[in-house]
Amino acid sequence: MSTITVPVPTPSPTEDSEQLRKAVEGWGTNEDLIIQILGHRTAAQRNLIRQTYFQLYGEDLLKRLESELSSDFERAVFLWTLDPADRDAVLAHEAIRRWNPKNKSLLEISCARTSAELLMVRQAYHIRYKKSLEEDIAAHTTGDFRKLLVALVSSYRYEGPEVDMHLARAEAKQLHEAITEKAVNHEEVIRIISTRSKPHLNATFNHYRDEYGHHINKALKSESPDDFQDALRIVIRCICCPEMHFTKVLRLSMEKIGTDEFALTRVVVTRAEIDMKHIKENYFKRTSKKLEHAIAADTSGDYQDLLLTLIGKDDA
Amino acid sequence: MSTITVPVPTPSPTEDSEQLRKAVEGWGTNEDLIIQILGHRTAAQRNLIRQTYFQLYGEDLLKRLESELSSDFERAVFLWTLDPADRDAVLAHEAIRRWNPKNKSLLEISCARTSAELLMVRQAYHIRYKKSLEEDIAAHTTGDFRKLLVALVSSYRYEGPEVDMHLARAEAKQLHEAITEKAVNHEEVIRIISTRSKPHLNATFNHYRDEYGHHINKALKSESPDDFQDALRIVIRCICCPEMHFTKVLRLSMEKIGTDEFALTRVVVTRAEIDMKHIKENYFKRTSKKLEHAIAADTSGDYQDLLLTLIGKDDA
Repeated sequence: MSTITVPVPTPSPTEDSEQLRKAVEGWGTNEDLIIQILGHRTAAQRNLIRQTYFQLYGEDLLKRLESELSSDFERAVFLWTLDPADRDAVLAHEAIRRWNPKNKSLLEISCARTSAELLMVRQAYHIRYKKSLEEDIAAHTTGDFRKLLVALVSSYRYEGPEVDMHLARAEAKQLHEAITEKAVNHEEVIRIISTRSKPHLNATFNHYRDEYGHHINKALKSESPDDFQDALRIVIRCICCPEMHFTKVLRLSMEKIGTDEFALTRVVVTRAEIDMKHIKENYFKRTSKKLEHAIAADTSGDYQDLLLTLIGKDDA
Repeated sequence: MSTITVPVPTPSPTEDSEQLRKAVEGWGTNEDLIIQILGHRTAAQRNLIRQTYFQLYGEDLLKRLESELSSDFERAVFLWTLDPADRDAVLAHEAIRRWNPKNKSLLEISCARTSAELLMVRQAYHIRYKKSLEEDIAAHTTGDFRKLLVALVSSYRYEGPEVDMHLARAEAKQLHEAITEKAVNHEEVIRIISTRSKPHLNATFNHYRDEYGHHINKALKSESPDDFQDALRIVIRCICCPEMHFTKVLRLSMEKIGTDEFALTRVVVTRAEIDMKHIKENYFKRTSKKLEHAIAADTSGDYQDLLLTLIGKDDA
């Protein structure tokens, strides 16, 4: 469930554009007004505002905002205002350019989106970067990670509820054997994880637990995990319980000294309109702390205001 | 260019449905009338006829036609009348169920369609078979073929004209090394072939010829080709000159004793509305024989009439 609140009646895109123009024109910038407008509009509404703003003033609102704002706040406003598929294309491109096996963006984009959403990300990537997403990943990564990531971003998983239990049992066994033999980079593991539907994989993981006495992610952890095993665990979490994955990323982004603003921003902007309510509940269960309090303690200024607006500070 | 001719004015979908109803009702079936209508309508028109027929008579026109017709004619009418993406899903499913490394359907569907068309095939496959196309291929094939086919059907190639010549030269060299070292199943070969855009690959193959003195497909042939090398050659032809590939398939389907009706039907129904004019010209250049004469000599009856209608017998 979304944590975005939209005022009723909603101002027209023209009114919003005029207000945003005032916020960026002249001396100084009115950051509060920017948050008040863009932080309280849905993706479709923000999209319309960008189009209207361009028609009225002949400039790209996002370019203007980038030139007026700075640092974490700039990045958060930029990513938030983008169309979700285009935002994912930007996040994917960042991840590919500074490729690091610990980066989670590509795993989230490929596994915690619907099949149709992932296709739209691939289309947005074409338009923005004049390449295909899988083409850039394949050219910039190597080895097991390349096999896994190319397969994941290229997948178009079936989304119906049908599950072949016989197959799920057989594949749980294959996964168990691969883990036992410390061969989790085996092509059968990648095939199962990257092509099967989410309901089928859930059935497979459930059977795994029933048969072998622990969750598959426990098994992947206890084997002195490397980056590839960590990636598989993230894939599995993004498939079977995305809200748990995002809760964990939020927790890790704030629990150490020094905040990981890249991760914090990414989770807030990509999940605010999807399952942030659920993530907030989960966060509280897991840490006995409200997410808004954690964010308030770790951030400041306009950046803090925007994040708190997006996670719905008032309805906690 | 299409070889389908549509009468002007075109009868309404209701008139067409009524005529088709007459053709299948009562004693005997009026095959001529079926060809006269369906053989002279575009994909969009056939689609509307199917919808209208269902509304008028509460039965699926295709199911009715299947029950009234038989053998090669039945299969040709069925495949022709299907929506193109759905037809490709059916052809892909047939190829997967009777998997044989010499089967060309999956290579054609993944390489001789536009990126958007291939996505629509994947969507149609979900609806028809409750699985994803790549999921079924991955589960029913093995080894190098699996790597190649899964990568090809999952690709969503960029379609813009931009080519990085530096990259094209580097990748031509990689391909040449793989062929020289008899390692054409190398993952870099599959990466290049399955992720790069068609304009990029054309530049790569052109550079290959300029630099090494022969077309890459010659090199792949002279190395005592196996099924995998043959598949790569088909992929390359489907990417750089699909009309030459389809001309060759037509030629092979009819040049031996006994016609390969599966291949003949597939090429005629999948290319009639795309590039059949070009294929006919090519066929004549290559064989000094008109395609309509070859088909007339190798087939008979209603099946022959339908094929000749689809390739535009009158405008040769």
